[in-house]
Amino acid sequence: MSIQKLENQVIIRNEKFIETAEQLKPQLHETIVKPSSIVEIIADTDVIHGWKSEVVAPASSLANSEYGKNDSVILDFGDHQVGYLSLIIHPVGSPPDAPLKLKLTIGEMPVEMAEPFENYNGWLSSSWLQEETIFVDVMPAVISLPRRYSFRYVKFDVIDTSPKYKVVFENVECKAVTSANLNAVKKITQQDAELQKIDETSIKTLADCMQDVFEDGPKRDRRLWLGDLRLQALANYETFGNNDLVKRCLYLFAGVPDDKGKVPANVFVAPHLIADDTYLFDYSLFFASTLHDYYFATSDLQTLKELWPTAYRQVELALERLDENHILKDSPDWWSFIDWQEGLNKQAPSQAVLIYTMKQAIRLAEELNVPEKDSLRDRLEEIVDATKKHLWDEEQQFFISGSDHQVSWASQIWMVLSGVLTKEENNKLMNRLFDENPAVGIATPYMYHHLIEALLVSEEKERAIAEMKNYWGGMIRDGADTFWELYDPKNKEFSPYGSHLINSYCHAWSCTPTYLIRKYNL
Amino acid sequence: MSIQKLENQVIIRNEKFIETAEQLKPQLHETIVKPSSIVEIIADTDVIHGWKSEVVAPASSLANSEYGKNDSVILDFGDHQVGYLSLIIHPVGSPPDAPLKLKLTIGEMPVEMAEPFENYNGWLSSSWLQEETIFVDVMPAVISLPRRYSFRYVKFDVIDTSPKYKVVFENVECKAVTSANLNAVKKITQQDAELQKIDETSIKTLADCMQDVFEDGPKRDRRLWLGDLRLQALANYETFGNNDLVKRCLYLFAGVPDDKGKVPANVFVAPHLIADDTYLFDYSLFFASTLHDYYFATSDLQTLKELWPTAYRQVELALERLDENHILKDSPDWWSFIDWQEGLNKQAPSQAVLIYTMKQAIRLAEELNVPEKDSLRDRLEEIVDATKKHLWDEEQQFFISGSDHQVSWASQIWMVLSGVLTKEENNKLMNRLFDENPAVGIATPYMYHHLIEALLVSEEKERAIAEMKNYWGGMIRDGADTFWELYDPKNKEFSPYGSHLINSYCHAWSCTPTYLIRKYNL
Repeated sequence: MSIQKLENQVIIRNEKFIETAEQLKPQLHETIVKPSSIVEIIADTDVIHGWKSEVVAPASSLANSEYGKNDSVILDFGDHQVGYLSLIIHPVGSPPDAPLKLKLTIGEMPVEMAEPFENYNGWLSSSWLQEETIFVDVMPAVISLPRRYSFRYVKFDVIDTSPKYKVVFENVECKAVTSANLNAVKKITQQDAELQKIDETSIKTLADCMQDVFEDGPKRDRRLWLGDLRLQALANYETFGNNDLVKRCLYLFAGVPDDKGKVPANVFVAPHLIADDTYLFDYSLFFASTLHDYYFATSDLQTLKELWPTAYRQVELALERLDENHILKDSPDWWSFIDWQEGLNKQAPSQAVLIYTMKQAIRLAEELNVPEKDSLRDRLEEIVDATKKHLWDEEQQFFISGSDHQVSWASQIWMVLSGVLTKEENNKLMNRLFDENPAVGIATPYMYHHLIEALLVSEEKERAIAEMKNYWGGMIRDGADTFWELYDPKNKEFSPYGSHLINSYCHAWSCTPTYLIRKYNL
Repeated sequence: MSIQKLENQVIIRNEKFIETAEQLKPQLHETIVKPSSIVEIIADTDVIHGWKSEVVAPASSLANSEYGKNDSVILDFGDHQVGYLSLIIHPVGSPPDAPLKLKLTIGEMPVEMAEPFENYNGWLSSSWLQEETIFVDVMPAVISLPRRYSFRYVKFDVIDTSPKYKVVFENVECKAVTSANLNAVKKITQQDAELQKIDETSIKTLADCMQDVFEDGPKRDRRLWLGDLRLQALANYETFGNNDLVKRCLYLFAGVPDDKGKVPANVFVAPHLIADDTYLFDYSLFFASTLHDYYFATSDLQTLKELWPTAYRQVELALERLDENHILKDSPDWWSFIDWQEGLNKQAPSQAVLIYTMKQAIRLAEELNVPEKDSLRDRLEEIVDATKKHLWDEEQQFFISGSDHQVSWASQIWMVLSGVLTKEENNKLMNRLFDENPAVGIATPYMYHHLIEALLVSEEKERAIAEMKNYWGGMIRDGADTFWELYDPKNKEFSPYGSHLINSYCHAWSCTPTYLIRKYNL
């Protein structure tokens, strides 16, 4: 993975849009959650990462123990939480004649409790590892940690007290926060207990990522990405129906285009709205896609009218990248996300994303009855014809990508979703994909989502369910309380960052099974 | 060194006294201090601890540099400060896509900047080492660290940012606090530049220890000890004249005697007034001594009347320890401070402290014209006679202490101060002490104070000045901005705690040269 850093990014702020987004900032729902157990983390080569947690006592017994220098205890909150930690610390023994030095290690998975953060040497910033070392000068003390954490486990390491006193921990609790209204979710009665559990875990994942924007991961990154937003919004329409949060996020992106009108791949909302200097071909197009989905979920014509120019502009900019054959130019310095699959060529899947989003843009243009609908239709026809002519390999019966004519899973999946083929051809293509299993596979839950949806639109419902159970069901069997940023059932040691510690174990782009289950009645 | 831990301490709170102390809580004076320089710490075997600081740039240039992962910078505030640190952190480069992890190391001496705190393995709590590791999620950020530090140097270690941004530090400042009114100090014109500098450094030391009580050390311990209070009060009368702070501290001790009426050796004032479970024979007696000095500095008869019973009670309790020969019983489990000198027997010096404070108590009883004056006088006569009979070794011409008849510097010094001998005998004894130089010497500035005063009351002014210049002047030559808790000119590597890092380099019991210089017109 590499990163974009732009030297001369020019942002044209649309203060009206930004103000609209600000007005839609949600009130967070707060819930006080207490830990359930005191646990130990045990080495076990049979479980993912090699560590499992074992209950040693109920959390209610915590205040019965006194902790001195080098003592530690791990609390298990029983489920994934996003929120604020607080506790009361009482001294025991003589009056405290030195400060308490206390280290807190806060983690989503047992591995974060077991493997020292000091050993982390991955390429993502170690500042994402959730820990605090605090000094408490006066006790008893009510400690309310100001930062928000994403976690299930908390470890207290007493680094030092003094020979004269120890401490007792009481009232440890988490003020969990989300902008999702958990009561708004329609109960579904799944005959299939595994799908039922996958649905519930998806919803928990989505809720924990719903803060004052749709975040990609509450532990790491904690920001609004367009590609993730699109999927979260789809899951949200089927569950919480917090459509104003989608609207807010659309206005945030529309508020900070660059001087060509392109929306960034992600934005920061603190200390104020800032466009990141990362631009992705597919993510920018997904502005149109997300607006399309929002409009058809809400019929909010006013928002469609206001944001249509932004959506249309993304398509215009994408079309500028087509060559004289109506095929996207490929180049080594090109930024399209698609997936993190090693060696994946982005040309064909990006061409498919363009077609997919153009069709959605045309639907919006038709709703608005704007003249762009005709020009878009004309362009689309040319592009679809060119795609079938230049990117379809008649001999291999696969779409190919780039100068090396790469046959990847991503290309076939996105071409199916783009609808350039008939339903029957799609079905054959998806079956061929599974049968021949090209080497350039799928890396992320984000791409797995598109695989499942491609199977569903290709009348391969059984295989779609089987794949979902294998992938998201596999995460649950491996201990997921919320769905993960990364999971490879065949290589559970995989982390693109060089360490499990930095992975996000509650990640928005992994929350879509509830959408797929509910939308397609699985 | 060892510690007292009492299981069954019973405190009889005097709420009226505590309320009086509370009413006298001072408003702290605040001064904004900016760093003067960016420095490097250089190894140099010729300087104390082996480290010296060298200026590399003015602090005003700090904001010209950008700091990324593993970068660090050390700021020098130019003088010792006690207060609160704040700074502004600006990101530079792309929008910060990960928190900043920043470590601050805050120290009084170059050694604290140079030697990693992680290596500290002394027996005092490592929690005293002044450091913070903070995570900054949103930038630009105004960081106001909530804890008070005692320092001259601050090191910023950028543990991590992300590959996309660096940080700039701006507006680093210290809100320095003291309850001392620096303008209240009378200027003295010293002919002797060295004594002038010693006087100034004493005053700075005292000011930095004057907070809402007289603290022993603003870096370490940070609390009110009776033995230190006595010396600070003496220095205060000659300088700041903040007599209400002395009064407050007397009422704090008088507010929390135990069930026998004994005042503790030290108290904590947060979260509320708490008596420590440490009791020292000499320190309890110094309540009477400090009340004596306070009364004669202020003529505050009302306070004398209120606190006399507490003072008298300390003498009564001390007298209970006398044996049938009117000599203090010695035992291994006895707690009298006197000095940290290794192997020092406390019997004879404590006997002298008893005589010294009884005389002061008698003066107070005379002022109040209470009947105790007569009984105290009678007891004193018996004790002085017994002391000369049993503790004076005619052959050696020294006072002896304990069953091994130990001849120590402390015994001679305190006997001189107690006035059991004539001025002429004192003079001879002090000269003999220097000539014969008994092995059991002096360890702390606290005991050095008593040495100097013993020389002064024995008409050895020249030697007193020479010793002061050797000891406190030596600290200044070794880089002291404020006087230290510990200093041995002959063994500069000495720390009773196993590390220089944990020593206090601004310590109240070392502030007395200004008292000695001004009181005795040196």
